[in-house]
Amino acid sequence: MMSSLPDAVEALITELTRLPGIGRKTAQRLAFHLLKSRSEAPRRLAEVLERVASDVTFCPRCNNLSERGELCTICSAPRRNEAIVCVVETPTDVLAIERTGRFDGSYHVLGGSINPLEGVGPEDLALDALFARINDGGIRELILANSATLEGDTTALFIARQVRGRGVKITRLARGIPMGGDLEFADEHTISQAIQARTDFEG
Amino acid sequence: MMSSLPDAVEALITELTRLPGIGRKTAQRLAFHLLKSRSEAPRRLAEVLERVASDVTFCPRCNNLSERGELCTICSAPRRNEAIVCVVETPTDVLAIERTGRFDGSYHVLGGSINPLEGVGPEDLALDALFARINDGGIRELILANSATLEGDTTALFIARQVRGRGVKITRLARGIPMGGDLEFADEHTISQAIQARTDFEG
Repeated sequence: MMSSLPDAVEALITELTRLPGIGRKTAQRLAFHLLKSRSEAPRRLAEVLERVASDVTFCPRCNNLSERGELCTICSAPRRNEAIVCVVETPTDVLAIERTGRFDGSYHVLGGSINPLEGVGPEDLALDALFARINDGGIRELILANSATLEGDTTALFIARQVRGRGVKITRLARGIPMGGDLEFADEHTISQAIQARTDFEG
Repeated sequence: MMSSLPDAVEALITELTRLPGIGRKTAQRLAFHLLKSRSEAPRRLAEVLERVASDVTFCPRCNNLSERGELCTICSAPRRNEAIVCVVETPTDVLAIERTGRFDGSYHVLGGSINPLEGVGPEDLALDALFARINDGGIRELILANSATLEGDTTALFIARQVRGRGVKITRLARGIPMGGDLEFADEHTISQAIQARTDFEG
C-alpha cells in the first residue's frame, strides 16, 4: 500500500515510534496533532530538543543531570547535607526522593546497575567518581537506594564491599509492605522481608 | 519543592505535556528516554520536526498534506480516478480510506467541519477550492465521507446544497452496524439508520 503521507511526516512518525510505549497509531496521532498548528508546534518542540541536546550534561560531582557542565541544582544548592550521600541508579530516582521532601542530603547517580546479562559492568557506572568523593573525606553516611532487584542488590553489595572499612556508615532503604499495599497482592519476597524486618508495634 | 532537573529538561517535559494523552509522568518518562542516548536521540527528533515544520504544506489541489507546495502523493499518482472525489475532514481520514485499498478515486480534505459553537464556519474550510475543482469540470461523483456527527452532517448538507444542479452525483458512506459490532452495544441512531437502510438478505 502506498502511503498517502509526505516523507517528512512518515519520518516524524517513525521517529516517534522509537519512544517507549508509543506505537504506530499513537505516533500518527501525535504527528497530526503537531501538524495542526502548521510549523509552530513542531518548531517549538524541535527547539527544546536542540536545547536539551546541546545543554544537558552530567553533574561533575554527583553525575545527576546538569546544564553546560555545571554542578547540578542539588549540588549547587545551599544547605544540603553533604555528609549524607544517597546512591541511586537514575536521575528519575533523584526526582522520586526529592518529591518526598524528607531528604536534605546529597546524591550520587550511578547511571544504572551492574547487569552481566546486558553487559553492564562496574566500569560502566559512575563508581570511580563515588569512590573519589569518599576518598576526599567528609562523607559520614552512604544510603544505598538501589532498586530492590537482583541487579540493584548486586550493585549495592559491590559498593558496600569497596567502601567497607573506610569509616563510612552504609545503610539501605527499608524493605516491606508498601503503603496502601494489600497483603494479598504482595509477593512472597516482599512478605518474607517484611516479616524479618518487623518492628515493635506501638499500640 | 525545588526541581532537581536542569531547565532545558523541564522545558522539554512541559512541551511534551502539550501533546494529546501525554501527562506529566509520561512526558518525564519520554524525556528521560530521549536523554539516555545523550544528545543523539533528542537531536534526531529535533531534525525531523524541523523538516516537518519547513517542508510540510497542503496540496494545492486537494488540501491533503504535501511537501514544499507540490501536489500530494495521491494527486500526483498515476491511474487515480479523478472523476470521483471523496470529501473528508482530515488527512487521517485519507489514511483510513487508503488502508482499505478499495478506493482509487481522489480526495478533497476540508480541514474540519462546520461547527458554529467552536466558531468554525464554511469560510474556515477548504470549500472554495472544492467548488473550484467542480467548476473546472471532469468530476462525476462526490462521495461525502464526513463524520457521522451533527457537525459532519451539517457540513455534508452544506456541500450538497451548493453542488446540487451542477451534474455531479452526490453520495455518502453507508451507515449501519459496524463489522463485529454487537447489536446490544449499538446506539439507537445507528440501529434506526441500519433498519431504514436494510438490504436484501442473500441466503
